[in-house]
Amino acid sequence: MNATVEQWGVFALERRGPSSGNPFTEVAFGARFRHQHREVDVDGFYDGEGIYRVRFMPDTQGEWHYQTRSNRQEMGGESGMFTCVAPSEHNHGPVRVHNTWHFAYADGTPHVSVGTTCYAWAHQGDELEEQTLDTLERSPFNKMRMCLFPKHYPFNQNEPQFLPYQRGEDGEWDFSRFDPEFFRHFERRVQQLGDLGIEADIILFHPYDHWGFASMPAEADDHYLRYLIARLAAYRHVWWSMANEFDLMQAKSELDWDRYFRIVQKCDPYQHLRSVHNCRGFYDHGKPWVTHQSIQHSDLTRVSEWRQTYRKPVVVDECRYEGNIEHMWGNITAQEMVHRFWLGTIGGGYVGHGETYLHPQDILWWSKGGVLQGDSPARIDFLRRILEKEAPEGLDPISREGASKGEAYYLYYFGVAQPARFRLSLPQDRAYRLEIIDTWRMTIAPVEGTFSGRFLVDLPGKPYHALQARQVEG
Amino acid sequence: MNATVEQWGVFALERRGPSSGNPFTEVAFGARFRHQHREVDVDGFYDGEGIYRVRFMPDTQGEWHYQTRSNRQEMGGESGMFTCVAPSEHNHGPVRVHNTWHFAYADGTPHVSVGTTCYAWAHQGDELEEQTLDTLERSPFNKMRMCLFPKHYPFNQNEPQFLPYQRGEDGEWDFSRFDPEFFRHFERRVQQLGDLGIEADIILFHPYDHWGFASMPAEADDHYLRYLIARLAAYRHVWWSMANEFDLMQAKSELDWDRYFRIVQKCDPYQHLRSVHNCRGFYDHGKPWVTHQSIQHSDLTRVSEWRQTYRKPVVVDECRYEGNIEHMWGNITAQEMVHRFWLGTIGGGYVGHGETYLHPQDILWWSKGGVLQGDSPARIDFLRRILEKEAPEGLDPISREGASKGEAYYLYYFGVAQPARFRLSLPQDRAYRLEIIDTWRMTIAPVEGTFSGRFLVDLPGKPYHALQARQVEG
Repeated sequence: MNATVEQWGVFALERRGPSSGNPFTEVAFGARFRHQHREVDVDGFYDGEGIYRVRFMPDTQGEWHYQTRSNRQEMGGESGMFTCVAPSEHNHGPVRVHNTWHFAYADGTPHVSVGTTCYAWAHQGDELEEQTLDTLERSPFNKMRMCLFPKHYPFNQNEPQFLPYQRGEDGEWDFSRFDPEFFRHFERRVQQLGDLGIEADIILFHPYDHWGFASMPAEADDHYLRYLIARLAAYRHVWWSMANEFDLMQAKSELDWDRYFRIVQKCDPYQHLRSVHNCRGFYDHGKPWVTHQSIQHSDLTRVSEWRQTYRKPVVVDECRYEGNIEHMWGNITAQEMVHRFWLGTIGGGYVGHGETYLHPQDILWWSKGGVLQGDSPARIDFLRRILEKEAPEGLDPISREGASKGEAYYLYYFGVAQPARFRLSLPQDRAYRLEIIDTWRMTIAPVEGTFSGRFLVDLPGKPYHALQARQVEG
Repeated sequence: MNATVEQWGVFALERRGPSSGNPFTEVAFGARFRHQHREVDVDGFYDGEGIYRVRFMPDTQGEWHYQTRSNRQEMGGESGMFTCVAPSEHNHGPVRVHNTWHFAYADGTPHVSVGTTCYAWAHQGDELEEQTLDTLERSPFNKMRMCLFPKHYPFNQNEPQFLPYQRGEDGEWDFSRFDPEFFRHFERRVQQLGDLGIEADIILFHPYDHWGFASMPAEADDHYLRYLIARLAAYRHVWWSMANEFDLMQAKSELDWDRYFRIVQKCDPYQHLRSVHNCRGFYDHGKPWVTHQSIQHSDLTRVSEWRQTYRKPVVVDECRYEGNIEHMWGNITAQEMVHRFWLGTIGGGYVGHGETYLHPQDILWWSKGGVLQGDSPARIDFLRRILEKEAPEGLDPISREGASKGEAYYLYYFGVAQPARFRLSLPQDRAYRLEIIDTWRMTIAPVEGTFSGRFLVDLPGKPYHALQARQVEG
């Protein structure tokens, strides 16, 4: 054997083992991976039909040795090795928190998070799911919020093709037996996001349920988390979102949420990003197992306050959706959605998109995917390009309408204001060029001259404009 | 003598007295007015050139008797009477708090407060002041925020014609000697507002000062308050605003603000409305001498929260101004200003207007008056007409986007949302007609049919629309 796996790729082991009894609970299987002096213990999982798998994401190039372990003699104690080689071109590793409030891939490449939301897109059947992937490929989004469990909710009345559990002889769910077909399907969709360079922000629990998955016994919850981590953690682009609207899940207490976080923290060998998304009140993002703040809120002027409160990245995953439905969380204009992206950016945070236009077959992007109808994605793409060009490592707020990257780059956003002029205070000893950005019409117009210190600059006197100042060689 | 004065009109007494020494501090003059068993003690004031005046606003029709009092024998002990007759057509008396969160005139006529702001308009000279009055006559505004002291501030560099104090022989201000000419001029402008049916929300102190009026000794502050009340309180349309941005006045402490309120409360025989306006943090509006909350804040979605906090009317006198200046408090669009008016209305409060468009001679309405340039006043007028027609006694919030007057009238405002339909929950046992309001284009379109109970209604799917439901005879 001379297997090679690229850095942050997936090394996979497959073994045959028992299929009788309950392999999900009775058979332990895993492997210990070793590179030089470091050892990483990885849980495997049962994939049905007598097949057991271990997936491992090596983070260091060089030789890795492994040895399997099991409570079944025939599957344990087997050893082997592989060589971890340089990552391929678009593989930058998993995303981590970087510089307190921002993100970067493991290789140091900055990650400007621009998320969208299709909660139940992976439960819609091949045709629609493939259309969603096709749409995503041409979209500006590099993160997808998606639920593992299927969704029952207004506009979501269709039953999914696959369900995560098997039923017992009594017709009731057997929460100790997963349905591998469900998970194989789900993880294929996750992988396809990875192929598109899109982070999968996987929502582990949610309240939009009529199957009983939102109110399983604690033991079943924990079993599910360990199983899912064993299956998915080796994919570098996975993020763990404990819940959508955790505070609407009446069957769960704060202690449950703490426990879920700690299980994920303990079982995920790669320490993927962990967060939890609220409806009304925040979970305490200060707890040590929370890597970043996943927030639902419509007031994007508060991002800088939340940054200071917890000193962790702020991702406003839900600030209401572009759309026209009767629910107030799903009917803001494209202009307002774009406005909120800019406000969150100036606050030093990241904002998530969603879309809820009425559709004759109830195919709303926010939940089912499909195609995008709205006018905000093009403008969000415009913003993303500016950020990736000018301040990929993230902006930090300096005033209510301004943010900067050190003294090299300043961005001011005026929102619903229409100043005909604005007073800038730039460093005296450097020279800057200015550009006026129309965030809606997506134009960038240079201002003649170079500038330093404190001065008034003329602006168009129209709303939804921004101004950037970039340092030039004096 | 058989003088008659209309109810809530001004009965004026004039007497000659000493002009030597310091009549402002050395001569006490006033009168006690009596109607049947009730007595009202009223302070007079010195108006220069040996003239002393008492002004009195009778609130009850019938015979009133009075007797003057003074520490100078020649001015005291004189008695007389007048007859208080029915008020003239447009005289409804002073505005009072009504139904906890709203306002009504003393005769019970509801007052829908729609204010504007020209802080220093009365210090601009006759030509501009008369233009301001002319503009106001054709405007929707029925309250004016205006400073007694002149204003020194960006866009306000011109010296006023009149100043409120005389200078001593050393060239310094003598805070014990008012300049009656200043006050005669100021009160003429106040009276002219009254003639237009506009409440004068008189700002007693403010921080925009280079004369020293913002940092007088406590004794001078108190003397000033008593003098101003003696001069102006008899005008029924006067409101007392202790300050603009009280929290920017570094020379004053919270105890000072309490004392000013208590002096006004004690000396004003008519108990005109009393408030104080903040910059950053609120004064404690719960204190008993505060009649209503005068607020500076840009987040109008919080009005209903403030209502509940203090259980007093909420008047957001400053939510930023329509304009295009470089300061972020003065450059929101007309659309945003109108939006804020609607948000505050739905919250069960009242909102104030101001306008700050750049002008070649620095004549910005917000401070100097002149003419209105903006597009918001017409829409504010449209809103005022709706409220005066449908809910003159005020709206109370029932949800984030809805407010009602009992079960007779419901108003929903969708702001930046663009719902294509909306679910209404009206009482089952009554019938309602619906109308869709375009708050910007100022149209009101009926929805066919009558409605009861819970139902979905189609909407235009465009932002800045509202929906009203008015009960009809079933």
